[in-house]
Amino acid sequence: MTSQITLYTAKICPYAHRAEIALAETGIPFKRVEIDLKNKPEWYPNVNPRGQVPAITYGGPDHPPEKPSPEAEKIAESLVLVDFFNDLAPNHPLLPTDPVRRAKARYFVEAIGSRFTPAWYASYMRGEPFDKLFDGLESLQALLPATSKYAIGDEYTIADVAATPFFARLEVALRDDFGAFAQGEGPKAWKTLTTEPRFARWREYYANLKARESFKKTFDEDAVKRSFAVRFARNQ
Amino acid sequence: MTSQITLYTAKICPYAHRAEIALAETGIPFKRVEIDLKNKPEWYPNVNPRGQVPAITYGGPDHPPEKPSPEAEKIAESLVLVDFFNDLAPNHPLLPTDPVRRAKARYFVEAIGSRFTPAWYASYMRGEPFDKLFDGLESLQALLPATSKYAIGDEYTIADVAATPFFARLEVALRDDFGAFAQGEGPKAWKTLTTEPRFARWREYYANLKARESFKKTFDEDAVKRSFAVRFARNQ
Repeated sequence: MTSQITLYTAKICPYAHRAEIALAETGIPFKRVEIDLKNKPEWYPNVNPRGQVPAITYGGPDHPPEKPSPEAEKIAESLVLVDFFNDLAPNHPLLPTDPVRRAKARYFVEAIGSRFTPAWYASYMRGEPFDKLFDGLESLQALLPATSKYAIGDEYTIADVAATPFFARLEVALRDDFGAFAQGEGPKAWKTLTTEPRFARWREYYANLKARESFKKTFDEDAVKRSFAVRFARNQ
Repeated sequence: MTSQITLYTAKICPYAHRAEIALAETGIPFKRVEIDLKNKPEWYPNVNPRGQVPAITYGGPDHPPEKPSPEAEKIAESLVLVDFFNDLAPNHPLLPTDPVRRAKARYFVEAIGSRFTPAWYASYMRGEPFDKLFDGLESLQALLPATSKYAIGDEYTIADVAATPFFARLEVALRDDFGAFAQGEGPKAWKTLTTEPRFARWREYYANLKARESFKKTFDEDAVKRSFAVRFARNQ
């Protein structure tokens, strides 16, 4: 496992954060390159023609970040990268070996994308009522075992990697009132999530996710706040 | 590998078709249960609370389809099932062992869902202009190697399983003029796809997909046509 990995990422981006958590979990060495999403470098399409983070170059000779080697593989998409890092790592720490448990992890990942993130973006980006978000979170919560540290049990998997960055940004946005919703609505919604019994299981789960070293190492709350403050100017 | 699998599926549904192709490819034995999507049996939520096909019961004692055993695992979502069947099968025939090639297959799967199917449904279900569909198909086509039988090379993978059912329904809908688009527009779009040089690589790829035994065994064109004819009544 000596092939170089250069990760193009952005602290604000929950998708990129998934890749960073997976790298931290697997312990795979890499070079980190921050991409300014509001002002993307002109060379970035040479890494990812679609312009998104996260993306990597893999293998090939060492190269300056802005000059990706033609010999290096270019790989993008957060969930593809999470699986890729898990595939690369000895013992594949982010997926169980049992097919049923693997399917449960993959099902949870799918549910994040179909039930939670659309509802989250509806509130956060478009200011729609929080009911949909609450329903989405409850629906995700309903998939959690009655008692377990993580999404499918006590092992930390791709499901947890996929969920963590979104919950962390949800906390900052609601708690500190950054979003397209009306001023003051964020903290109210955050209070609902942090006090109402119906979200108790989710709170417990989220606390376990936040306690994970790979999260603490990779989440820069101040950077996220600064970025939210620019996007949603009212809170400055 | 003696655990029972009962597959709840529907001939019309491209997602369910993915599961059937994966089962045919892996040779895993299963019991097939057709679900009438227009008139779902009242017991079906016991298999999949979300009501969708495909879904399976796995393991537990043999059971009549309408009485899933509480001891059986219930698993849903087409891509989760494709991965699950591949995980169950000896030698995992639907994914390469090389991490980079696995990532390419997963990237292609992601691209089907983000670039092709939304564009397809826009034309087919909402009658939007075909430009978006053509662009989506070209964007998917651009991922194909210059020469190869399948999506990422000459091995048939989850990427091909994921794509095939959609292309097959696209052919029937356009060629035979079933869809929300104006009458006569389907065959015109089909002519574009089947004659214009810009879709040559896609045509070659699709021909290879159609030639696959697992497709021929699992695609019931007449059933799909009958269902389209009911939905889009003009062609009867």
